[in-house]
Order: sequence, then structure tokens, then C-alpha cells
Amino acid sequence: MKRDMPRPAYESVAVSSRIRLARNFKDYPFPALLKRDPHAVEQATEIVGLIAAELSTMDEFTLYDVGSLTDERAAYLVERYLISRDLVRNSAISAALIAPDESISVMINEEDHIREQYFMKGFDLQKAYERISGIDDVISESIPFAYDKTFGYLTACPTNLGTGMRASVMLFLPAVSRRGVLKDIVSLLTRQGLVVRGAYGEGSGADGELFQISNEVTLGRTEADILAEVENSVKIVVEIELRERDRMAAEEGIDLQDRVMRAYGVVTNCRKIDAREYMRRMADVKLGIALGFFRPAADGRNYKQMAAIDDLIVAMRPANINRLNGSPLSAEEQDVFRARYTVERMRELKLAP
Amino acid sequence: MKRDMPRPAYESVAVSSRIRLARNFKDYPFPALLKRDPHAVEQATEIVGLIAAELSTMDEFTLYDVGSLTDERAAYLVERYLISRDLVRNSAISAALIAPDESISVMINEEDHIREQYFMKGFDLQKAYERISGIDDVISESIPFAYDKTFGYLTACPTNLGTGMRASVMLFLPAVSRRGVLKDIVSLLTRQGLVVRGAYGEGSGADGELFQISNEVTLGRTEADILAEVENSVKIVVEIELRERDRMAAEEGIDLQDRVMRAYGVVTNCRKIDAREYMRRMADVKLGIALGFFRPAADGRNYKQMAAIDDLIVAMRPANINRLNGSPLSAEEQDVFRARYTVERMRELKLAP
Repeated sequence: MKRDMPRPAYESVAVSSRIRLARNFKDYPFPALLKRDPHAVEQATEIVGLIAAELSTMDEFTLYDVGSLTDERAAYLVERYLISRDLVRNSAISAALIAPDESISVMINEEDHIREQYFMKGFDLQKAYERISGIDDVISESIPFAYDKTFGYLTACPTNLGTGMRASVMLFLPAVSRRGVLKDIVSLLTRQGLVVRGAYGEGSGADGELFQISNEVTLGRTEADILAEVENSVKIVVEIELRERDRMAAEEGIDLQDRVMRAYGVVTNCRKIDAREYMRRMADVKLGIALGFFRPAADGRNYKQMAAIDDLIVAMRPANINRLNGSPLSAEEQDVFRARYTVERMRELKLAP
Repeated sequence: MKRDMPRPAYESVAVSSRIRLARNFKDYPFPALLKRDPHAVEQATEIVGLIAAELSTMDEFTLYDVGSLTDERAAYLVERYLISRDLVRNSAISAALIAPDESISVMINEEDHIREQYFMKGFDLQKAYERISGIDDVISESIPFAYDKTFGYLTACPTNLGTGMRASVMLFLPAVSRRGVLKDIVSLLTRQGLVVRGAYGEGSGADGELFQISNEVTLGRTEADILAEVENSVKIVVEIELRERDRMAAEEGIDLQDRVMRAYGVVTNCRKIDAREYMRRMADVKLGIALGFFRPAADGRNYKQMAAIDDLIVAMRPANINRLNGSPLSAEEQDVFRARYTVERMRELKLAP
């Protein structure tokens, strides 16, 4: 695949890239069967052990036995996109291996034996694909995958057959979403076989204007095809968002500046803030950074400030707050914790109007 | 009158003191008659000339011929409490003399020939009375006042007969007003012959929680009696407000802190703000200063920070904004000016959470 590097402005829209591969071992029953097998735990433990042994040659992965995780800890990992709710539901046989920097997560015995993902900041699906392929190669060298010459990789659900690959990019789309353009984009991408999802629950208003674009179809095309399709569509959406941001800034003028700066005033001074308002205010602040309402970062790469806020948004989800606090808090206590922690982090970020 | 100095906390409630005296000259028709007299302008000019000459020995007073003031300039002076709307209505014959620091204003040919007032920050009616008496003595030495042994000073309206004195104190009553105690205070003071008024239009919600307490009755008692009555009532109200503030802080806890700090976040970051929201947010910030939510002033006298905000509130009234701007602005332009000016001044004030 030929690649042209994205413009820096792209990274104020396409904030992160993720590749996920679904794999199964040919010599073991699929997890759905494994769960009903009297020897399940034994076999599951065997699979986990084999993969852990392979990966230990690559990095210091942390092994999580899902069955022995507290609900709090499991929720924490789900909030950080490191494991899925389905993995938690399979806790009798499931496990996860996670790299120290959280870029790599290998879920074991979720819907498939293996769900391996690579996550990175910025917009670079090719790089993400190369990284996860490295992991994939290491695992496949010692444990043969279920692979069919016609269908490709065999998976529990036919929607993952073939490449078993889901390539996704997270986009920050405040202008597209507020100016009513999102619906058109969704129907455009759907016709291309792509899917658009809100990052934090669709239509809840609490989505932080973050949307994930990924491929629906995994079968009948190569990995390179899929990467190119997603990448090209993302580029189009990025261009639309950048254009709509310029229009919004021109049309709304002082009203937009006022909304952004009030949001900044709130997140740097409030003493309690609920999750819903938090997402809305943080999205406004990020939009302000993107539009140059704040003094630019020393290196001119303002998207790093935006990425820092994205990290903060994840860190301020309920189970993440409880983990930072060291013990579970009530919803109201979380609102107070969220405010205090955010005021401190925002001060460190040294955004200045 | 025996005086005990008020505690410093008093000045976070009783923010300014004002004495106003009504006087008339015995050898001239009262203004209401003067207006109907064919020689009115001549006689009015004579009165203005006499008073101006007397006062020029004391300070560099500025003489305003009301008839030649623009509407804008007149509105500016009204907003600063230096002249009254009645004075503006009498513009054919009226004038005002104002001291450079705006502490003294002498209105000529309003309802009475003379309405002289002394205004000062803080709570000290006795001092204010001494200052305005100095002015009163200078004027009376050369132009004899209309005075009756039984009734005292004669005035156009019988409600000012006798001492012709109105002693008033401006109080910042956010706790009393929000906690529903104001009604009881008003009926208590009414029975004492005192009057309570909102500073910026009652019941509008845009009053900035500022209320003026003054004497209703001017007749049948000495100046010292009136000063003592107002002073004692103010002291009682101050004590009630301080007690209610403590209760409010204890009961509302983090919610109150959050409201105050959000108000601070808004007035230090907004890009437009209307007069109504402005009053509400500024009242919250002042309450926060009074409750010690911000780093204390270097000299420990936080009421000075509150007084600076009161000055800013006056400076951000419509005609004051127009004068600062140098030309009239639309209502929306004023909202933008108010935000920009306030963000700058608040930065200079160096309040810090």
C-alpha cells in the first residue's frame, strides 16, 4: 500500500488508530464449545499458558486471569478499551495479556480464542497493522491457527471470517456532529461497508464528540484493501470536519469563543462535575485548542494537548476514578474527585488563553 | 454619639456609607416654582454661581450644567450615583458639583435647591456625616438656608423636613437574601422607621445581592439620633448576614464552593456576558472572597478585593461601558466589552483559589 503522510491538522481530528485481529487454534474447540466442556478450565488454562509463554519473549506482558478479577478491576480495564464486556462474561475460561504501555492487548477465550489488538495515538493504520502482525506471527509460529484456503481465518462469528481484521480510527468530530452533517457521513460510509459508532454510547450527548470508523466486512478482500478503504474514508471525513470547523468559527465567532472559554473556566475551577457535563466541556476545550484559541504548544503540535485531554477523559470514567482513589466512591463523590483531579491536571497542561 | 469601631468582617457586609442633606435657600423660590418662573434660568444660574464660588475654596469641584450634558453623559453620572434622574428631568435649571474623587456630590435645583451627599467605602456614618457637614457649613455661611425653629430645615417634600438628612448604608447580603431571611429583616426595619431597597432594582434578580438601608423619618429627631438608629440596625443585619453565611457554608459545602468557583471561572474566561448574569456571578465571587475560598489579600483585608469588584460592577453598567469605550455600543457589543474588560481587571486583582 502506497502511503502519503497525513498533515498535522489531521491529528486534531483522527486521534487514534486500532487494529484488531480475531484468531482461533485449530486443535481446540471454539470458546462457545469450550465453556460447555467438562475439561474446559484445563484446556483454557493450557491455551493461556501457551500464548503467555510465546509473548513473554517479546515484552513484559501482564497476565490477567479474568475469573479472579474484581468487578471494579474488570470495569477499569473495560473503560480503558483493554478488554471487552464479552471477555468478562466468559470469566470461567478467559484471560488477557496486556503490554506495559497498554498499546497491545491480547484477549483469550472471548468470542474467539484470540482477539489481539494494537492501539496507538494518531492516524497510522499501517503502522498499527505492522505491530499487531508481529504479535500474530509470534503466536501462530507455535500454535497452528484454524485457517481455510477459501474462507481464510475461521472465526466464531461469520462477520469476522476471512482476514479476521477490524481496522478502526477514532475521530473527534465536534463540527460535523453539531452542524448536522454526521447523518450524511454515516449513510455515506455505510454504503462503503464501513461502520460509524459513538465512542461512549451513541446519541447520549455524553459521547465527547468522539466517533469510531471501522470496516464492517472482513471477508473477500485483503488486509491491504481494508486498510486502504478505512484510511481513505477517514481522510474524507477529516477534510469535511476541518472545513466545518472553519465555517463554524467564521459563523459563530464570539459565541463559539465564549462557549469554549467558559468550558475552560469551568474545568479549571469547578469543585464537582458529572460525567455528562464533563464530556461536553472537555469537547469544547479540545475544539478551542484545535481552533487556536489557546497559546500554541511549544512544539506547535497542539494535538498533543488534545491527546492529553483524551487520556484525562478516560482516566475520569467511573472505575478509573475508583482505581485512582484507591477505593470505590459514590457517584457524587466521583463528581468531586473528577473536578479536583481535572483542575490539577489542567493546570499542569498550562493551556493559556 | 459614643462609637465602637466595627470588626473587619463588618466591611464584607456593610460596603459603603452615604449621608445626604436636603437644603433650600430662604431668599429664592423652591425649584418647583423656579421652573415656572420667567426669570428661572437667571435665578438658577445665580444659585449655581454662588455655590460653585463657595465650594471652589474647598476642592477642585467639577461643575456640570445638566442642560448641556448629553444623555449618555447624564446616564453615566446617574449610574455612578453622582446625580439623580430627577436632577436630569430638571435640566432647564439644574447643575451638579462633583469632587474629583467622587466622594462629594452637590446637586443644585433637583427637588430642593441643594442635595449634598458624601459617599465613602466601608461602614462609618459618623465620618460621612462630619464630611458633609463641612460642605454644608461652607454653603450656609454665605447663603442663608430656609430654616424654621419648629420644623427645622424646610424642604420641598415634607418627608425631608427637619434634619433633611438621609443616612444610608449599602449592604452585601447574599446569604440573607438567598436563605429567605430578607423578608423578616425588611419588616423588622420598617417598624423601626427604616427603609430597605435593592441597589439595582428590586426583585429583578440583577441586584447583585446589594441592599441599601436608610432612615425614612427626618423630622422630630436629631442627626445623632438618626445616625445611631441606622448604625444600630445595620449592625444587627450584619450579624445576621455573617451568621447566615456560616450556616450556608456549613450546609451547602461543596455545592457552594462549586458555584463560587464556577462563577470565578466564568468571569475570568468568558468572551461575552450580559448584565444580569454578570451581577449574579460577581455576587458569587464576592461571597467566595468573604468566605475565604480564595488566597487572602496580602494585608488580610479581603474586603478591599470585594470593593474592587463593586467598582468594577459600577464600571460595567451600560453608560459606563460606553464612556470607557469612547462611543456607544449595542447591547450585544456591551456584553462582549463587559467580558473582555472584566477578564483583564480580574487578572490584575490576582484572586487565586
